[in-house]
Amino acid sequence: MKICVIGGGTGSFTALKGLKKYTNDITAIVSMFDNGGSTGILRDELGILPPGDARRCLLALADETEDNIFRKLFLYRFKNSVQNHSFGNLFLAALTEITGGESEAIKTASKILRIKGKVVPVSLNNSNLCVKLENGETIKGETLIDIPRHDGNLKIVNAWLEPEAKANQEAIKEILKADKIIIGPGDLFSSIIPNFLAKGIPEAIQQSKAKKIYICNLMTKHGETTNFTAADHLKEIIKYSTKPDAIICNSMQPEENLLKKYAKEKKYPVKIDEKEIQKLGVNIITKEVACAKDFVRHDSDKLAKTILNT
Amino acid sequence: MKICVIGGGTGSFTALKGLKKYTNDITAIVSMFDNGGSTGILRDELGILPPGDARRCLLALADETEDNIFRKLFLYRFKNSVQNHSFGNLFLAALTEITGGESEAIKTASKILRIKGKVVPVSLNNSNLCVKLENGETIKGETLIDIPRHDGNLKIVNAWLEPEAKANQEAIKEILKADKIIIGPGDLFSSIIPNFLAKGIPEAIQQSKAKKIYICNLMTKHGETTNFTAADHLKEIIKYSTKPDAIICNSMQPEENLLKKYAKEKKYPVKIDEKEIQKLGVNIITKEVACAKDFVRHDSDKLAKTILNT
Repeated sequence: MKICVIGGGTGSFTALKGLKKYTNDITAIVSMFDNGGSTGILRDELGILPPGDARRCLLALADETEDNIFRKLFLYRFKNSVQNHSFGNLFLAALTEITGGESEAIKTASKILRIKGKVVPVSLNNSNLCVKLENGETIKGETLIDIPRHDGNLKIVNAWLEPEAKANQEAIKEILKADKIIIGPGDLFSSIIPNFLAKGIPEAIQQSKAKKIYICNLMTKHGETTNFTAADHLKEIIKYSTKPDAIICNSMQPEENLLKKYAKEKKYPVKIDEKEIQKLGVNIITKEVACAKDFVRHDSDKLAKTILNT
Repeated sequence: MKICVIGGGTGSFTALKGLKKYTNDITAIVSMFDNGGSTGILRDELGILPPGDARRCLLALADETEDNIFRKLFLYRFKNSVQNHSFGNLFLAALTEITGGESEAIKTASKILRIKGKVVPVSLNNSNLCVKLENGETIKGETLIDIPRHDGNLKIVNAWLEPEAKANQEAIKEILKADKIIIGPGDLFSSIIPNFLAKGIPEAIQQSKAKKIYICNLMTKHGETTNFTAADHLKEIIKYSTKPDAIICNSMQPEENLLKKYAKEKKYPVKIDEKEIQKLGVNIITKEVACAKDFVRHDSDKLAKTILNT
């Protein structure tokens, strides 16, 4: 079974890390529009596409045996030196310069890291994510959307890329031949939707005969998905791509103490409003797919099993 | 035949690159006291030993087949980004942190780069090169000796390490079991002599039954070896280590135009004062071992052949 995971952030990392235990035939489609941190610096200074999301997916799929020094190198980040760069980002940046392109660099890194499956950039164009808020204000750059400067209660009413980006043909091919397309988990506007903004991607998802499954977020994100229910997430997915066949929601309730910690950052559990989801005509799968020790996170193994059984 | 090359700078690079064509049994002993450039920044900020000299020797011995992407990565330097670091230095720095030490990092990099032979740090202590000038002034740090701030006519009368450094036991072993010990080529005080300042190294060279060959520099270096003849170089080698069996001098005369370029930097061809060398009881081998197109440099192949025939 060919599985195609669309995302790029830490959510994709979790999904891929779980899925690779059960299948070899897995493709991670990653967004390439980040402009923050180590990735943003390299993007600005070297004029390359941001390597961060590709790095995370490569790491998720990398051979985890102890002798794989490259996995350790890709995990390494300089501290109080070298601008606190992630070594994996530097590796991808140097490979991009040497091999002549991001696509080739990711392929070379895939071999070096002995990954299972493939990592494919959603687009090879150098574009920035932009959103419009309900008050008419436009925000440019993923970082400013990820960590908003507005009061956080303004809804995002539209998202687009500047300049327009075309889909990477390889990404389209992978989407078309997939048996299952997994959307998320991940930050809705800063990790997931950017993939749909590359011209040709929504059409490919619509055309694909794959079963399409959206993994709903566990917690809301202030300024990005304030007060969003599961159906609200789903509506945005439908708006920017297509209607999935199923949504996987989490049934595990985190402890009060942990929720209090999250509440300080104005993050709250995503309410599963079944009736609203049913109205959208999407099948709801509610399972215990999260773990909640120090953080509320998807559990890579439970999530993978649920994905495979859906 | 076991060959041991002592040095670390670009001179060692040239010698090793030539020698590896003719022998597998080659060890590069490298000084670890550089404090300039990319290397110096990493040394200061990460508290690791400077990787630059080891990187150069690893590159010289690396497998040069086209598919060796790691050789290309080690050759790569960021431009107008990432503090213009050499990627090879960053690679060694990250490996040092991951593997727990410089020695282990160099061994891991040796495998990754598929090198012929070995690269062995002369010492694993974090020390700085210091020199005293004839006016009594002390200069600390290889960079300031390499690019002197004094008028350049003051002779270096003494060199030492601060704090004292002990020889790496592995370096001693390699020196003791060598059949040939090659000293240089390289900057006399900033690349070659630092190796002899690690406690135990001169004694090991003296004890070793290897044939000891000094490769004399082609050009003087302003502020470090101003007006030095071949015998002057040799005297310093003898002072800090032991009397070599032979000195290899270059017979090829560079063209006037090229010499004029060098004269602007107050660098002049090293005069081969045979009588003075004979007085020291060292065998002189004068051969065409240099090439002189844009730079006056040792020719790696000619030098290697001459070394093997000596």
